[in-house]
Amino acid sequence: MREVTVELGERSYPIYIGEGLIEEAGTYFTKHEISKKSPLLIVTDENVAKRHLAKLESALTTAGFQVHSAVVPPGEKSKSLSVFEDLVTKGLECGLDRKSAIVALGGGVVGDLAGYVAAAYMRGIKFIQIPTTILAHDSSVGGKVAVNHPLAKNIIGAFHQPELVLYDLATLQTLPQRDVKAGLSEVIKHGLIWDAAFTAWVDDNAERLLALDPEALGYALSIGCGIKAQVVSKDERENDLRMILNLGHTIGHALEAVAGYNELLHGEAISIGMVGSARLGVKLGAPQEVYDVTKRVLSRLGLPVQLPQHLDTDAIMEAMLHDKKFSEGTMVFVVPTAIGQVEINKSVSTELVREIVEQLKQEAV
Amino acid sequence: MREVTVELGERSYPIYIGEGLIEEAGTYFTKHEISKKSPLLIVTDENVAKRHLAKLESALTTAGFQVHSAVVPPGEKSKSLSVFEDLVTKGLECGLDRKSAIVALGGGVVGDLAGYVAAAYMRGIKFIQIPTTILAHDSSVGGKVAVNHPLAKNIIGAFHQPELVLYDLATLQTLPQRDVKAGLSEVIKHGLIWDAAFTAWVDDNAERLLALDPEALGYALSIGCGIKAQVVSKDERENDLRMILNLGHTIGHALEAVAGYNELLHGEAISIGMVGSARLGVKLGAPQEVYDVTKRVLSRLGLPVQLPQHLDTDAIMEAMLHDKKFSEGTMVFVVPTAIGQVEINKSVSTELVREIVEQLKQEAV
Repeated sequence: MREVTVELGERSYPIYIGEGLIEEAGTYFTKHEISKKSPLLIVTDENVAKRHLAKLESALTTAGFQVHSAVVPPGEKSKSLSVFEDLVTKGLECGLDRKSAIVALGGGVVGDLAGYVAAAYMRGIKFIQIPTTILAHDSSVGGKVAVNHPLAKNIIGAFHQPELVLYDLATLQTLPQRDVKAGLSEVIKHGLIWDAAFTAWVDDNAERLLALDPEALGYALSIGCGIKAQVVSKDERENDLRMILNLGHTIGHALEAVAGYNELLHGEAISIGMVGSARLGVKLGAPQEVYDVTKRVLSRLGLPVQLPQHLDTDAIMEAMLHDKKFSEGTMVFVVPTAIGQVEINKSVSTELVREIVEQLKQEAV
Repeated sequence: MREVTVELGERSYPIYIGEGLIEEAGTYFTKHEISKKSPLLIVTDENVAKRHLAKLESALTTAGFQVHSAVVPPGEKSKSLSVFEDLVTKGLECGLDRKSAIVALGGGVVGDLAGYVAAAYMRGIKFIQIPTTILAHDSSVGGKVAVNHPLAKNIIGAFHQPELVLYDLATLQTLPQRDVKAGLSEVIKHGLIWDAAFTAWVDDNAERLLALDPEALGYALSIGCGIKAQVVSKDERENDLRMILNLGHTIGHALEAVAGYNELLHGEAISIGMVGSARLGVKLGAPQEVYDVTKRVLSRLGLPVQLPQHLDTDAIMEAMLHDKKFSEGTMVFVVPTAIGQVEINKSVSTELVREIVEQLKQEAV
C-alpha cells in the first residue's frame, strides 16, 4: 500500500493506493473519524454500481456505518444541476446531517458531482473519494468539484477537499483498454511538466502500465498524484502555478469541442495537444529531445499523436480563442523548456499556434 | 461614516456604514480594486430596484465599471435553485469571468441568493453586499450564503465572504415600521449575548432607533455588526462559539414554522424566543434582571414578548425537536447568565422548555 499526502494545511488529506482497499474501507473510514452516528451517502453510476457498490456497502455496514446509496446514469450528462438537486433531496430523505459524509465511488464525473453535493449540502460536509478510473487520479487531487451548465462546463462548483482518497487498484482491472490509455495520458503529463526521471520510467515501463501490472500502476499513480499534490499545495485556488497542469489542454480542449466529445476522449485530445506543446517548445528554444521524448512516450502508451486530418484548422483556432477568451494576436500557453520542466508563455502568437496545428496533422505516426 | 472590520485573516473585509454610500459606490469599488475590465452583475429584487437600482447603476457606470443587472421577484421564494440557475445563465450571457464581481443590492434574501451565485460561479468570484434592510446587518457579517430546497431552508450553500459591505443608511428611511422593529430584534440580540453597555444604550435610545435617527441607527448597526464580527472571526465555520448567535432562535424557529411564515416575522419570533431564553436563564440561576431588562428593551422596541395564545404547545415542541434533531429528554439552548453574557447549555430538559413555552403564552404585555 502506498500513501501520498496532499499538503494543504488544515485541509491536508491522504491518498491511499493499493489493491483491495474497498474491502478495507471500514478500517480507513474509522481511522479518519468518519461518524458512525450520522448516515453516509455513497454516490456512484450504474456501471460502477454493478461491479463495486455491494462490496463497498458491505464493507462499511460491517464496520458499523449507516450507509445509503444513490446511483446516477453514467456519463457527463449526470454532471447537471438537476441531478445535483436530486442528490440533495436524497441526502435530506436519508437524514444526512452536518457530521455526515458523501462518498464518491467512480470516475471523474461521479467525483465532480458528488463532491459538489458535499461542498454545498448544509454549506459543506465531509467528502471521500474512491476513484475507479486511472483518469480520476487527476481529479482526486486538488478539490475542484463542479457541475455543468448548458452553456459551459464546470461553471457551477467549489474547491472542496476530501477527507481521504481510497484508490483501489483492483477496480482498474476491468477498465476498457481505451480508457486505460486515455487515463495514462494525464499520468505522463505530470511527468512531462515536473519530473524527468518519472518520464523516463514511463518510457521504459509503458507495456507494464498498459498490461495493468499492479506494481507499475501503483507506482505511476502515486507519482502522478504526488506531483499534482505538490503543485496544488503551492496554489490551491488556481491563481498561478496550477496553470502548468494545463499542458496540452489549450489545443486539447479545442479538439474535443471541434471533434465532438465522442470522437476523442479527453486523454486522447490532450495527448495530441502535448505533442503540439512540445513542438512549440522546440520552436521557442527547447532542446529537440523535448519533442522526441514526448512523442515517443505517448506513442508507447498507445495514445494518438497526430491530429485527425478532417478537423478544420479554422474551427480549431476559433475554439481555442473562444475557450480562453484570448485577445487577438497572442495566447497564453504552457510550454515545455526541457523534459520535466515547463513555463507559462503569455505571448505566443496565434500565427505560430496555427502553424503547430497544421503540423500536427502531418505528424508521422 | 463608520467602518467595522470583520477580521478573518486573508478573507477580512470592511463594512462601511453611512448615509449616501450608494452614490459613492464607484469610489469604494475602485478603492477595493474591483475590476473595471470584467463586467459586474448587480442582483436585486423588484421592490428595491424601483428605489435604488438606477442610482447604483449610474454611480458605477460613471466610475467606469461595466454594469449588468438582474431583478428577481421579492420574497423568500426567490431563494431557490431555479432562480440561482437563472442568475448563472445571466452571468454567462453577460460574460462574467473570474475577475468579475456579483453585487447584492437588497435584504437578506437577495444577499443569500446573490452570495451563493458568487460562491459557485466558476468556483467562486468576488461578492459585494449593499444591504437595504436593518435585518441584513446580521447576514452581511459572516459569509453564510444559501438557497432553499423544498424540504429545508438554507440547505444548499457555502461560506463565501464579501470583499466589502456598503451600508447606506438612506435606504433604511423607506422601510415599513414593522420591518424596522423586526430588524432591531437582531440588533438588540447582539447586545444581549455580548454587551451590557450596548443593551443599556438601546434601552435608553429605543425611540430614536424607531424614528430611524441616522446617528442612532449608524451607531447601533456598527455595534451590532461589530459584535457579530467578533464572534464570527473566532469561529468562521460555525463549529462552536458561533452558536451563541442563536439566542432566541430555537423557540423562534419553531414559532415561525407553527405560525406559518406570514403571521410572525423572523425578528418578531426571536423576540418572543429571547424572552423565553431569559426566563430559562433565571430559572437556571441568572439574576432576575436578565428577564426584566430583556423583556423591557424588546417591549420598548415595539416587539412582541408574548407567545400568541392560539399556537399549540405540542406543535411548537415538536417543531423544536424536529428542527435541531434533538434526542428525546434534553435540548441544547443558548441561555443568558447575565445581561451581555450567555452560555451553551446542552442539558436543558424538554419538560422545562415546555413549561417556558406555556409561560410565554401568559406573559404580561
